[in-house]
Amino acid sequence: MKRLFTNASILTMTSREVLRNQSMAVEGDRITYIGDQPPRAAEYDEVIDMSGKLLMPGWVNTHGHAAMTLLRGYADDLPLQTWLEEKMWPMEARFGDEQVYWGTALAVLEMIKGGTTCFADMYDHMDQVAKVVKESGIRARLCRGSIGLGSEEEQQAKWEESVRFAKDWHRQADGRITTMMAPHAPYTCPPAYIERFVASAKELDLPIHTHMSETQKEVDWNVKEYGVRPVEHLRRLGVFDLPCLVAHAVHLTDEELDILAEYDVKISHNPGSNLKLGSGIARVPEMLQKGIRPSLGTDGAASNNNLDMLEEVQLAALIHKGASRNPEAVPAFTALQMGTVFGAEALFLEKEIGTLEPGKKADFITVDLSGPHMQPQHDLVSLLAYSASRDDVQDVYVNGDPVMRNRECLTLDEEKIRYQAQVVFDQIRG
Amino acid sequence: MKRLFTNASILTMTSREVLRNQSMAVEGDRITYIGDQPPRAAEYDEVIDMSGKLLMPGWVNTHGHAAMTLLRGYADDLPLQTWLEEKMWPMEARFGDEQVYWGTALAVLEMIKGGTTCFADMYDHMDQVAKVVKESGIRARLCRGSIGLGSEEEQQAKWEESVRFAKDWHRQADGRITTMMAPHAPYTCPPAYIERFVASAKELDLPIHTHMSETQKEVDWNVKEYGVRPVEHLRRLGVFDLPCLVAHAVHLTDEELDILAEYDVKISHNPGSNLKLGSGIARVPEMLQKGIRPSLGTDGAASNNNLDMLEEVQLAALIHKGASRNPEAVPAFTALQMGTVFGAEALFLEKEIGTLEPGKKADFITVDLSGPHMQPQHDLVSLLAYSASRDDVQDVYVNGDPVMRNRECLTLDEEKIRYQAQVVFDQIRG
Ligand SMILES: [Zn+2]
Ligand SMILES: [Zn+2]
Repeated sequence: MKRLFTNASILTMTSREVLRNQSMAVEGDRITYIGDQPPRAAEYDEVIDMSGKLLMPGWVNTHGHAAMTLLRGYADDLPLQTWLEEKMWPMEARFGDEQVYWGTALAVLEMIKGGTTCFADMYDHMDQVAKVVKESGIRARLCRGSIGLGSEEEQQAKWEESVRFAKDWHRQADGRITTMMAPHAPYTCPPAYIERFVASAKELDLPIHTHMSETQKEVDWNVKEYGVRPVEHLRRLGVFDLPCLVAHAVHLTDEELDILAEYDVKISHNPGSNLKLGSGIARVPEMLQKGIRPSLGTDGAASNNNLDMLEEVQLAALIHKGASRNPEAVPAFTALQMGTVFGAEALFLEKEIGTLEPGKKADFITVDLSGPHMQPQHDLVSLLAYSASRDDVQDVYVNGDPVMRNRECLTLDEEKIRYQAQVVFDQIRG
Repeated sequence: MKRLFTNASILTMTSREVLRNQSMAVEGDRITYIGDQPPRAAEYDEVIDMSGKLLMPGWVNTHGHAAMTLLRGYADDLPLQTWLEEKMWPMEARFGDEQVYWGTALAVLEMIKGGTTCFADMYDHMDQVAKVVKESGIRARLCRGSIGLGSEEEQQAKWEESVRFAKDWHRQADGRITTMMAPHAPYTCPPAYIERFVASAKELDLPIHTHMSETQKEVDWNVKEYGVRPVEHLRRLGVFDLPCLVAHAVHLTDEELDILAEYDVKISHNPGSNLKLGSGIARVPEMLQKGIRPSLGTDGAASNNNLDMLEEVQLAALIHKGASRNPEAVPAFTALQMGTVFGAEALFLEKEIGTLEPGKKADFITVDLSGPHMQPQHDLVSLLAYSASRDDVQDVYVNGDPVMRNRECLTLDEEKIRYQAQVVFDQIRG
C-alpha cells in the first residue's frame, strides 16, 4: 500500500519547525518521503488531502497497567496505603483473563482515540494484553510485572512466566510487539529476585522495566532495609548495566540524578499519577539540565484517571514551571519531545519511531486545527503543548496502517468494548 | 417556552449524589422541577431524552481577559516581566474595538464549547465585550479594568469609563450581564485611586474585582512601598468592606488567609495561569480548611493557553495533592464545586446560578458519558473531575435557552469568528 498525504502542516519532531504545505509518502509500514516535491513517478493507492490538519508522531506512553481501566474511579482521594491495600489489591486479585482482556481493550481504545501509537505495559495475564495489541493494530512494549513477595514457588512461577512471555511475543504482530523483563520494584522484590531478572534480560537481550522512588516512604524503607537509597541499590544489583527504564523517579538526590545520567537510565515521568496519589513532583527541570531525556507515562487509569497522553504533555509543560517558579522550565517543544521522541528512546525503539523521517515506521497522528481554542495560528508547537485537547486528534496510523479515521476506530468494536468492560467489572465488584 | 429533559443522570451540585433516571423541567429562564415524577398536566413545547447524558450546572469562570485569546501562543516560556513588558503590553496597546470584539467572540465561542455558562471579564473596550455577551447568549459579570499608572487625566478618564460602563450594562441582556468595579491591582493603582473605585462601588452597590498577590515579587514590592503585604493594604483601603473578588491570591500567609476568611473575600484560583507563568501554587488546601470557598478562573488565554474550565477543575483536583503530598487534598467533588457553585458565590450570583434547583436560572450543560475514558461508570463525580474531556460537553443552556446543541453553537458563527480573529490578529502583528 502506497499513500500520499498532501497539503499538510508537518511537525516531524526532529526540530521545532513546522513544515507548511508539505507532503508525506508512506509505503508499507515506512515513511518514504517528506517534502514539497513528492516523487512524481510513484503511483499511490490513496492520496489524502491534509489541509487544516497537522501531522506529527503519535504519542509514546512509557508506563502503564492498561487493564486497570476497569478500576477507574473505583477508589479516589484516599491515602496511598488504604487505596492500594484495601481497594486496588483485593480487586486486582479477582482479575482473570476476561478482566485483563476487556480492561486492556478499553485502554487501547482510549489510547488510540487520544493519539497514542505505542505504549508500555506491565501487568499480569499478559497473553491477553498481547492479544489486544495484535488485534488493535497499536504498537506496544510489554512485560509481565513480577512482585517477589510470595513463596519461592510463587516467585519461580512468575519469573518463568515472565521469561516465557518475553520469548513468545518479542517481535510478534508484524514487529509491533516487543518485550521487556520487569521486576516490579525494589520494595516488592528481594535483591536476589531482581538479580534473576537481570540475568534473564541479559540472556534474552531485552531491557529491564521497573518502578523506582515513587514515594518518599519507599525511599526511606529502602535505606532502612538495605542501607542505601533505591538508585544505588539497583546500581549494585546490576540493573543499570543493561538498557533500563524506571517509572516515576520522583524522589531523587543530585547524586542519584548524576548516576541515572551516567548510566543512561531511561525515566518514565508520570505527572498525573504522581499528583493524584500525592506522591510529589519529580525533578524534571534538573533531569533536563543533566542531559536526561525523561519520557511520559500515564500509569494505570486507577491513579490518573485517564490515559490521555496529551494531558500528560500539558501537565509536564505546566507543573514544573509552577513548582520551580520558573516560566522557562520545560518549554513547549520539550514537553512534546517528552511525549514522542524521548518516549521512543525510553522504550529503546528510537531507531524505528518517535519522529517523522524517511526510513522510520509510519506511526503518526493528524490533529485538527479548526477548533476555536486553536486560533489564531501563530505557533503550532505552543498550541499543541498548551491549548489542544485529545479530541483534536482525527486520524491515527501505526506501521503505515490506519487504526482511526475521523475519530472512528477501525480496528476495535467500540460499543462492544464499552459493554463488556462494564460486564466484567460488575462480575468482580461482587 | 417549556422544556422537559427526561431519563437524565443529574448532578445538581447541592450534594455529591448523582440522581439517576430523573427529569428536569424548565419554564422560560428558570428550572421549575427536578425529580422522577414531572408535573403531568404541564404541556411541554419540547421533551428531550437525556439517556446516556449527565445534566449539571455550567462552569463559572471567575477571572479572565477574554480578548486576550488573540495573543494565544504569541509568546510563551519567558520570564514574566519580559513576557508582559516586551510582548503583551505592546500588542495590547494596539488593540482597538475590532480586536476586542473578535477576540472576545473567539473566547466566548471557546467557553461555550467547553461548557462555561458564565464568566467574569476585566478588560478595556468593554462595550464590545458586552455586545458579544448579548449576542452569544452567555452570562457574564463584566468590569473595565483600570491601571492607575498614567497621568491624573488618564486615571480620571478610566475611572469615568468604568463607572459609565458599570451603570450602562448592569442587568442588561435579559439580566445576563451584571457589572463590577475593577481597580487592576495594588501594584498598578495608587491607594487614592483604589479608594475612588471603592467609593463608586459602594454608591453603585456593585462588587469590587481586582488582582492580588499573584507573584512573590509583587508582594515584596508592596511591603517595600507601603510597609504591609497586599491583604492588609487592601483591607486598610476599605476594599474588603464591600463584596470583593480577588484573582490569584497565590502568596498568602496564615494571617492573610484568616483576614480573607473573616471578611468573606472571594477568591478566583487560576491554576493553569499560575503554573504557566511560574507564579507558584496557591494554598488551596489551607483555604478550604479555613472555610474559604475558592472559585476557578482561566485568566487570559495568553497565559493558560486555553479557556477550558474543565481543565482548571482537573488541575485544581490534581496539583494540590501533589504539591502537599496529600491525596486527600481537594477531593473530586470539591474541585467540581470550585468550578460551579463556589464560582457563583465568587460572582455574587449564587441566588441565581451555580446549582440545579427549582427556582434557579436554567444555566446547565449536558455531558456525554459514552467515551471509552468514561467507562466503567462506577462514580460519575470521579469521572468528571479526573477523566472527562471538554469535548464531552454536548449541550449548553443559559437562561433556559440552548446556546449549543450536539456541539454546534447556535448563537455564534464559528467559521466567521475563526476567520475574523486571524484577520484582526494579523492587523496588529505588523
Ligand atoms: Zn506503575
Ligand atoms: Zn488577570
